[in-house]
Amino acid sequence: MTANPFIKQYLMTAGPTPVPPAVSQAMAAPMLYHRAPAFDALYERVLGRLPQVFRTENPVLAFAASGSGAMESAVANLVRPGTKALATASGKFGERWIQLCEAYGADLVRHEPGWGVRFDPADFDRLLGEHPGIEVVFTTLSETSTGVVHDIQAIAEVVRRHGALLVVDAVSGLGAARLEQDAWGVDVVVAGSQKALMTPPGLAFASVSQRALDAANASASGDEASGRGSGGGRYYFDWGRTAKSQAGGASPFTPAVSLFLGLDVALEMIEAEGLEDVWTRHDVLARATRAGALALGLDLYGDPDERSTVVTAIELPGDVDGGKVPGALRKLGITANGGQDHLKGRILRIAHCGYFGAFDILTSLSGLEIVLQQLGHEVEQGTGVGAAQRVFLEAGVLAAA
Amino acid sequence: MTANPFIKQYLMTAGPTPVPPAVSQAMAAPMLYHRAPAFDALYERVLGRLPQVFRTENPVLAFAASGSGAMESAVANLVRPGTKALATASGKFGERWIQLCEAYGADLVRHEPGWGVRFDPADFDRLLGEHPGIEVVFTTLSETSTGVVHDIQAIAEVVRRHGALLVVDAVSGLGAARLEQDAWGVDVVVAGSQKALMTPPGLAFASVSQRALDAANASASGDEASGRGSGGGRYYFDWGRTAKSQAGGASPFTPAVSLFLGLDVALEMIEAEGLEDVWTRHDVLARATRAGALALGLDLYGDPDERSTVVTAIELPGDVDGGKVPGALRKLGITANGGQDHLKGRILRIAHCGYFGAFDILTSLSGLEIVLQQLGHEVEQGTGVGAAQRVFLEAGVLAAA
Repeated sequence: MTANPFIKQYLMTAGPTPVPPAVSQAMAAPMLYHRAPAFDALYERVLGRLPQVFRTENPVLAFAASGSGAMESAVANLVRPGTKALATASGKFGERWIQLCEAYGADLVRHEPGWGVRFDPADFDRLLGEHPGIEVVFTTLSETSTGVVHDIQAIAEVVRRHGALLVVDAVSGLGAARLEQDAWGVDVVVAGSQKALMTPPGLAFASVSQRALDAANASASGDEASGRGSGGGRYYFDWGRTAKSQAGGASPFTPAVSLFLGLDVALEMIEAEGLEDVWTRHDVLARATRAGALALGLDLYGDPDERSTVVTAIELPGDVDGGKVPGALRKLGITANGGQDHLKGRILRIAHCGYFGAFDILTSLSGLEIVLQQLGHEVEQGTGVGAAQRVFLEAGVLAAA
Repeated sequence: MTANPFIKQYLMTAGPTPVPPAVSQAMAAPMLYHRAPAFDALYERVLGRLPQVFRTENPVLAFAASGSGAMESAVANLVRPGTKALATASGKFGERWIQLCEAYGADLVRHEPGWGVRFDPADFDRLLGEHPGIEVVFTTLSETSTGVVHDIQAIAEVVRRHGALLVVDAVSGLGAARLEQDAWGVDVVVAGSQKALMTPPGLAFASVSQRALDAANASASGDEASGRGSGGGRYYFDWGRTAKSQAGGASPFTPAVSLFLGLDVALEMIEAEGLEDVWTRHDVLARATRAGALALGLDLYGDPDERSTVVTAIELPGDVDGGKVPGALRKLGITANGGQDHLKGRILRIAHCGYFGAFDILTSLSGLEIVLQQLGHEVEQGTGVGAAQRVFLEAGVLAAA
């Protein structure tokens, strides 16, 4: 029990996100042996469902890892020492691409227009033109640190025109922001279980096109000269190994069995709601959150627009010690993200990613109103909540009375 | 999953009330055999803790039954055909005393000042004076149908002066509204597991004074002439049998094992919070609810005052079809009580009984604002929520930021 009995616990972060009761209940089932028929059927069903969320015909490769493991798999499979790559960052998770590429010895072009800035596809065009021979471009769908969702469709069009492979970090974006991997021509999409897939952390995914898989396989052979071994300097995250094993109906390593049990239910929920409706729900939740913040006289951080459906970054007013806001919310039972790195104390991030409903947004806004008042910023209590309620009413998403 | 994915489920009724996760988790433990040492220890611990919540030195008798079973036990043990009794009702659950007394053949005086009216102790004085020989008085702590909490302390003083036994239905009140059984001289208090005791339905309790137990035992003997058998016409609910069995450390019949596992944790939570603080929390939640309703321009039903800490009955405005309010709330995922019997369609009851925190009240009020708007009653969205937030802020019950 919590120290303060007026307070219950509300997980309002952009990952791990709230787990639906039906998912938790499924994971409480007795442990399955991963080479038994019951797990085989589950594994096949989950792997069969995953591509629909990526909007792809690719096999989606599953790893027991956090989302960063899937990011690492992309770099490990596509970057050898000296590989020419472009990595783009306008926030913390974009910077992770840069760190990974540097760790794997890429010949790297960095594009960093600044935190909170939405990438301009024209910059990709320019950089790919200025640096001929770039083989892989790494970018981000939803930048969790700032709430900005990038225009992957336009970026993909540019990157394909230049003949490079495009790898998209969709860890927080998949299932929360529109992404059409095949229609947009995205070679690789990486994701994790703990965001809009509504499952606890521990599963990482890479949806890999044949073109990317071929490039990965090529990089794994014939480079003994590089001193990295015949496997290309990778084993656990080797796409070829996992793709081959999955095609045979088995996981190459011990899979995270209970997470598969949960993910199976979560994917069924997404299927039942319909992916288009899931995206629409995230859009309405985001609009309500933005309306709530604006009604409180607060500014939105960075460059949000109608794409920013995963998390809303709100600038904290100058008259409060912003660093205290997440802790004060936690005292109300609400776990929400503050800013990371240089945004620490400057923003609050209200998530709406995965298993979020209308009253989650209202609770987050109530908490924000209370905390701002507690910290000395005068708030007409109820104003943000009321504005969000009006969005829900006007959107007609709540059942008619 | 729900039909509308914007909606999660919120149980906001006055019983069954929300079950704390720790209680649910305890009940998921493997089943215990009820004659095994592990259950013996649990049973002893729970029976040891229960009297603290009743503020009594009495043994608290536990039955596998709903709260009405405990009410029936009181009538079965204290009323024989022709026993003179006074039953009082200002709502649906008071009327249950009347029905029970009639079913058991009491020579009954009925006191029914009208739904929503708070009992006046002077009426008890007058009626007991006008009808000498009344042996038992049946009344109600918290009348769930109207939200009114009666002044048991003053009533008990009057009833004891007249020498009668006082039986109080505290099914929804116990643990939510102040009750000091021994200090106030209440002979019998009956309760259930599913209200402020934060446990699922299925356990019923009767805290029985020695005086009442003696009266019950006397009524069980020597009345063969009545044709009701030597056991006084009761068996499962016989207080003497259960008291004797519990004193020996065992339940006379198979106990509801998993409910005991849950209740053990719930009682530990109440102990950790402290009963005085539990009562204060209910008072603050009720004040926030009343402030929210009044800020929306709505009237409170009946005769609520600072004692009305269990459930708040709100009069629905004349321009909405009140019968639609509970159903419309349910479409928002909020299960709340409308009115019962002739109050159907006239009131909404917002509960704050048991495992309720500040954000539960805010969610209920958000839901009410949305539903009134949907049903055509113009509401400045956020007004009620804001008023409740101010109560919480001013009460200082939320941790300082």
